[in-house]
Amino acid sequence: MLSAASQLSPAEQGSVPVLPSEEARRAYRAGEIAVTAGVAPGYVQGNLAILPEKLASAFHRFCQLNPKPCPIIGISEVGDPRIPALGIDLDIRTDIPLYRIWRNGEMVEEPVDIMKHWRDDLVAFVIGCSFSFEEALVADGLKIRHVEEQRNVPMYRTNVPCKSAGPFSGPMVVSMRPFKPAEAIRAVQITTRFPSVHGAPVHLAKPELIGIKDIAKPDYGDAVSIRPDEVPVFWACGVTPQSVILHSKPEFAITHAPGYMLVTDVRNSAFSIQ
Amino acid sequence: MLSAASQLSPAEQGSVPVLPSEEARRAYRAGEIAVTAGVAPGYVQGNLAILPEKLASAFHRFCQLNPKPCPIIGISEVGDPRIPALGIDLDIRTDIPLYRIWRNGEMVEEPVDIMKHWRDDLVAFVIGCSFSFEEALVADGLKIRHVEEQRNVPMYRTNVPCKSAGPFSGPMVVSMRPFKPAEAIRAVQITTRFPSVHGAPVHLAKPELIGIKDIAKPDYGDAVSIRPDEVPVFWACGVTPQSVILHSKPEFAITHAPGYMLVTDVRNSAFSIQ
Repeated sequence: MLSAASQLSPAEQGSVPVLPSEEARRAYRAGEIAVTAGVAPGYVQGNLAILPEKLASAFHRFCQLNPKPCPIIGISEVGDPRIPALGIDLDIRTDIPLYRIWRNGEMVEEPVDIMKHWRDDLVAFVIGCSFSFEEALVADGLKIRHVEEQRNVPMYRTNVPCKSAGPFSGPMVVSMRPFKPAEAIRAVQITTRFPSVHGAPVHLAKPELIGIKDIAKPDYGDAVSIRPDEVPVFWACGVTPQSVILHSKPEFAITHAPGYMLVTDVRNSAFSIQ
Repeated sequence: MLSAASQLSPAEQGSVPVLPSEEARRAYRAGEIAVTAGVAPGYVQGNLAILPEKLASAFHRFCQLNPKPCPIIGISEVGDPRIPALGIDLDIRTDIPLYRIWRNGEMVEEPVDIMKHWRDDLVAFVIGCSFSFEEALVADGLKIRHVEEQRNVPMYRTNVPCKSAGPFSGPMVVSMRPFKPAEAIRAVQITTRFPSVHGAPVHLAKPELIGIKDIAKPDYGDAVSIRPDEVPVFWACGVTPQSVILHSKPEFAITHAPGYMLVTDVRNSAFSIQ
């Protein structure tokens, strides 16, 4: 005769350990609001962009044309809030701590879930984020200045145009991390292994060549110090797709609130190509 | 009954094609004197250093400790002039177009072969050369400035010390190629694949940080132009071991004459680690 315990599912019995990423999503689903930096170390976090189907196709083409700023790591079926490839139980309507609702390019609400905003015609895109490659840089002994200085990474609008698709066009946004030259070379090698999370830098050393007038005045995030023996190194940034979407003033869009990312069950190391 | 032709070896019959590298070595063996840049494209060329056995062991350790400037791609048995791994028929005493004989750090002769200098206690080291990675850069569409300007690559003595072994010590010598920042990033990726021929750059953008006072005045080779939208990119250079050997004033040493390299039968692509 079966014992009572054996009639529970393995997860209910506790025999399948809950991933830290799953645990985080459960907390956000229950209403916890917290930035996700440092949450579930080792697991990929992603940027969210949700669009109506009629815009989603053009946005998908835009990402395809601009893989460095817009590396898609997950995409939902139309009207389906699940993205099983990023987490079996994942529900894109509830599992992010804080969302932003946009109408005609204006932010109209910042809710903790989007249950009442979900529609049958929505498509959710999850786009890679630099947290993954920063973890690989740190694992190699490099120090991330904005982490050391407890600030947000500095980000800049460049004069480098993305390739446009449908209504979506605009300049690439880049994030910046200063390194000594030999460290910058090592950082190129390490981040090259992670094409799904922005990959290798797009620029280094000469900010003025990509239209950055004052490195001390980022367009997003916070300024960080750059020492005389360092060069600024620039990576394509996941803020690009968001900035491009909002610039096109879509009638309706949903994004995550900055810093409140989607925590997935995919390990960062799974995104390394070697 | 066998025909006359079938009694010849396959190579003599012409049924085994002679490699362009083999052909070049045969010409040098016959006394032709010519720089090897552009000879046998696709095949690895190497720097030569020959030392008496009692110094060879320390030099081998020196190379082991400093793999970026001194990547050994071939080494002879003591007193044996062959290095079959680099070419079945290769004879290190004859197959380089021009040699230099050194006594106590002074160049005493520049012969076309070293038959009369060969000794039972000599060890020949062949060290990778940047021709291999330059070919990979060009194949990717990058332009090499010193090739465009038909000059020798500019090389600089740095203030970066090599790790010393026995009598061998001294600063790293670097070669420089200017690139736009995005090209420099691509060049890091490409040359990373070729650790046997100096690998990734060791420095970029700020020459003064490695003790280069005037980029327009290289210590070896020729100056090349650097445009305002470019950064200088520095690779560890095979001139390093030669400069270190001569600095130690060994009682006897043989090297190739600059520009007159050993042409091997190893394909450049065979040195790519991916």
